[in-house]
Amino acid sequence: MGRITQRRPVTKIVIGEDDVVERRRADVLAVEEPLEIRVAGESLAVTMRTPGNDVELAAGFLVTEGVIHHGGQFRSAIHCGGPGTGASDGNTYNVLDVALAPGVAPPDPDIARNFYTTSSCGLCGKASIDAVETTSAYDVSIDEASVDARVLLTLPGRLREQQAVFEKTGGLHAAALFDAETGELLVLREDVGRHNAVDKVIGWAVLEDQLPLRNTILQVSGRASFELVQKAVMAGIPMLAAVSAPSSLAVELAEASGLTLIGFLRGSSMNVYAHAERVRVPEHAGAARRANA
Amino acid sequence: MGRITQRRPVTKIVIGEDDVVERRRADVLAVEEPLEIRVAGESLAVTMRTPGNDVELAAGFLVTEGVIHHGGQFRSAIHCGGPGTGASDGNTYNVLDVALAPGVAPPDPDIARNFYTTSSCGLCGKASIDAVETTSAYDVSIDEASVDARVLLTLPGRLREQQAVFEKTGGLHAAALFDAETGELLVLREDVGRHNAVDKVIGWAVLEDQLPLRNTILQVSGRASFELVQKAVMAGIPMLAAVSAPSSLAVELAEASGLTLIGFLRGSSMNVYAHAERVRVPEHAGAARRANA
Repeated sequence: MGRITQRRPVTKIVIGEDDVVERRRADVLAVEEPLEIRVAGESLAVTMRTPGNDVELAAGFLVTEGVIHHGGQFRSAIHCGGPGTGASDGNTYNVLDVALAPGVAPPDPDIARNFYTTSSCGLCGKASIDAVETTSAYDVSIDEASVDARVLLTLPGRLREQQAVFEKTGGLHAAALFDAETGELLVLREDVGRHNAVDKVIGWAVLEDQLPLRNTILQVSGRASFELVQKAVMAGIPMLAAVSAPSSLAVELAEASGLTLIGFLRGSSMNVYAHAERVRVPEHAGAARRANA
Repeated sequence: MGRITQRRPVTKIVIGEDDVVERRRADVLAVEEPLEIRVAGESLAVTMRTPGNDVELAAGFLVTEGVIHHGGQFRSAIHCGGPGTGASDGNTYNVLDVALAPGVAPPDPDIARNFYTTSSCGLCGKASIDAVETTSAYDVSIDEASVDARVLLTLPGRLREQQAVFEKTGGLHAAALFDAETGELLVLREDVGRHNAVDKVIGWAVLEDQLPLRNTILQVSGRASFELVQKAVMAGIPMLAAVSAPSSLAVELAEASGLTLIGFLRGSSMNVYAHAERVRVPEHAGAARRANA
């Protein structure tokens, strides 16, 4: 569809010590457009996303909200109002209608709101964690994957190298899935919304019928929130690595779910916030490890 | 409530050329907890936020969703289940019930989803822009505010200086309101969610009955999305400045609404994406401006 970036005129102002330069030039922006996800014609959610990989985005959203958990449950998806339907302004490709396989229960239309809502006054982080554990089809705590710390250190650089659109616009978040054993990049997706980038990755996987994503690492470009850990758990991903800080509830959910959570993964160091047993450090470091234990 | 940061143990791994250091230490995290916003007992939204300034957050959310537009329409708010209600696990302070003033129409319970949803297949960026223009009580295009470019260049540094929690955790977004004429900081709020930080700023303003926020600049720590421009427009803020990139739809909404949108505001330069007429550049630059026009 070619709508991932857009050129716009911009006024650039540079204030030096002795002069000021102000000029008009073209700038490249990351495209943001609404996408309405419908299931069997019923509206489920509207998200602001970067166009492209919309079917993956919808499939991943359905996984992370607990509606489906393997590829066979997703039958098809069409952009509502295809070419030639006669609508005066054409198809905007911003409404996607999903058909689930026969026998799959349709989602509660209030799904997005109800996931964390309780009827009592007992809403708290613990209740949110319980909701994920109750809903998830997979148990990442039993995943015996592990990763070499030196492999982890290479991931942010490889994420950035592959981020084609970010290079041009500076405006996109990225999420990528790596094989924990070989360090191989399995898939990378970019989006203006960080949660959307992750949903696209998970959607790719469910459409390839690769759930649960055992023995993988999800690397994200920004911070690690509760919601990103939730999405990883729902897809059976055992390790999540972020370039920046995690939140308190992200760490608590990781701890409770058995997910390895890595933050501040930069340069030659990292912080492991939960389930550090999956991170292998090189053998020759034994002395230093004991000295600092 | 003292729950803005939390200490957690972390495993820090540093891989040097000749050695590896792995040690346990305490780390400070930004707290993330769910908040359910209710109006007259009806659940309206659940957001993951950093506790503190919850009443501002709810008030700001009601402004940016178009439910209220001045302070007199917000009567009161209480954390549901106050101390001593006998709930076994005490009050979590995560459910806030808002009472609107008599005569204010209660919000549609589907407000968050319906804002951009249309019944036809015509959902597109233009429809989202129209939704903001139809809902907003204020017209920022008539605001005659302007700002000296040299004042703008100081804002990111002043935002960062004031970010007390970010210093400790690296995990919080910030939003701050500045007076466009004097450059004075009016209010700054931090949150794990960028939209929450902006809602808290706007909530502070509506509770002080300062809407519309004429002659102000909203400075944010990250990127400028459609949603952040929408929130500024709903509060009558004429200028929005971001440290990073804007999205295509953020620029389109700013252009259509009459809001001045500045991005990549760093060091000695900035990009003005819409309504550059409000940004004054110093007089002595006349020659350079013409040469580059």
